[in-house]
Amino acid sequence: MDAPRPELLSLNTATVREKWNLAQMIEGCARHGIRGISLWRDKLDELGAAEAAHMIRAHGLTVTGLCRGGMFPATDQAGREASIRDNLKAIDDAATIGARCLVLVVGGLPAGSKDIAGARAQVRDGIAAILPAACAAKVPLAIEPLHPMYAADRACVNTLRQALDLCAVLGDGVGVAVDVYHVWWDPELEDQIARAGREKRLLAYHICDWLVPTTDLLLDRGMMGDGVIDLPRIRGWVEGAGYAGSHEVEIFSAGNWWKRDPDEVLEVIIQRYASCT
Amino acid sequence: MDAPRPELLSLNTATVREKWNLAQMIEGCARHGIRGISLWRDKLDELGAAEAAHMIRAHGLTVTGLCRGGMFPATDQAGREASIRDNLKAIDDAATIGARCLVLVVGGLPAGSKDIAGARAQVRDGIAAILPAACAAKVPLAIEPLHPMYAADRACVNTLRQALDLCAVLGDGVGVAVDVYHVWWDPELEDQIARAGREKRLLAYHICDWLVPTTDLLLDRGMMGDGVIDLPRIRGWVEGAGYAGSHEVEIFSAGNWWKRDPDEVLEVIIQRYASCT
Repeated sequence: MDAPRPELLSLNTATVREKWNLAQMIEGCARHGIRGISLWRDKLDELGAAEAAHMIRAHGLTVTGLCRGGMFPATDQAGREASIRDNLKAIDDAATIGARCLVLVVGGLPAGSKDIAGARAQVRDGIAAILPAACAAKVPLAIEPLHPMYAADRACVNTLRQALDLCAVLGDGVGVAVDVYHVWWDPELEDQIARAGREKRLLAYHICDWLVPTTDLLLDRGMMGDGVIDLPRIRGWVEGAGYAGSHEVEIFSAGNWWKRDPDEVLEVIIQRYASCT
Repeated sequence: MDAPRPELLSLNTATVREKWNLAQMIEGCARHGIRGISLWRDKLDELGAAEAAHMIRAHGLTVTGLCRGGMFPATDQAGREASIRDNLKAIDDAATIGARCLVLVVGGLPAGSKDIAGARAQVRDGIAAILPAACAAKVPLAIEPLHPMYAADRACVNTLRQALDLCAVLGDGVGVAVDVYHVWWDPELEDQIARAGREKRLLAYHICDWLVPTTDLLLDRGMMGDGVIDLPRIRGWVEGAGYAGSHEVEIFSAGNWWKRDPDEVLEVIIQRYASCT
């Protein structure tokens, strides 16, 4: 297998969210020669989409994604409508900054609910409601299956098979974001990545590592090479399925990487991307 | 749907492991009218299998399972052989105490390995190696698919579909333990439970609840009713699939239930079993 290509490396800015603002993130990527960037909306709001788009273009970066839309399930109709409005705003912003996709973290159970099948139906209906606007804006929607440990509170789409089945129901304009952290354990992963390629659904590829032990369900992700995920093998599957987009590094790490100097973090990312992925 | 039948309630003794020894667990079940008990091997060793069997019979309890065999993957042949020997000992003990099944927590990645497919092959081979002894001893082996968050360090069998596929390869004498904590999120759960019934693989049913938030990956399980799992719905699927065995309460809870008086815990279990499952 070929080595990973440096020009495909992208920084998901959650990785340096604690110490840098958006302007620093953009300048940092450019300074380190990282050519892709993926933004979170809280940081985008610091500059506003138009100003951020200008600055990103000025630094020659590609926006590999906007995080995140989604969070569709709600206890009542008013809540679901508020979610739709928020997603339409996210689509507008994604279009303004030229994001290759809007990543959807679809949402979990509404407060007080134990009806996961119902939540999944709300997710389907929510995506269907925003899909025309996404298609009109030429912003592909990337459903990100999240690890099953987030099924209750973050996303009730939990396997790649489930996400692709949902795409098949929804039609064109929607695909998947494959994040190794969420799917590395799946015995069907190779088959479902191949299927995603055949069905033209592969919109994004996110990397990090799974630490042993993992001490926090949300904020203890590892740097590539520090955990147990066979990253070269999964990259081989993804590239074998025809994916030619960026490889986005997204590390939530309250106890380690978020505490470090972001310039150091970016140096380590570049090294590990070359040696461990 | 009918109410849960009290005579099917079983106590997995992990639920009261911090404050009671095995003799207290046996006496406690009898005192509270709980007619099933599932043992862990560390506690069984307190009395030895023969003495424990005598005491369990004297108190009129059914042994719904012995926890646990498994842990097959190892870095070398010597490690794999040691695991086989340990599993054969577990089969002997399960037979001595009349356990309805030996629960297998199959093991994760060997130290230093990133080869989860290889670990899964070692699991298959390990179970195949002990299956003749299990059949001879009339001890069914119950593969327990564990939540994907344990794939690296506890069990690389992570969905009911995967466990049933493995059973199909292995043949007679092996089935599955369905623990709601591990499988509640699975979009295929209803279908795979029905399949398990058709294929005569349903050997055990374990209940507890998934808390939101969950603060620890291992030791923060909830009492039935305190979380988001739709227990009556899943029981309906399990019973609809023909399962007529016990409903075993297994709660790992370092911060809450393990700290309480076990007599209080058993009272709450009996109440919640009736009202929430």
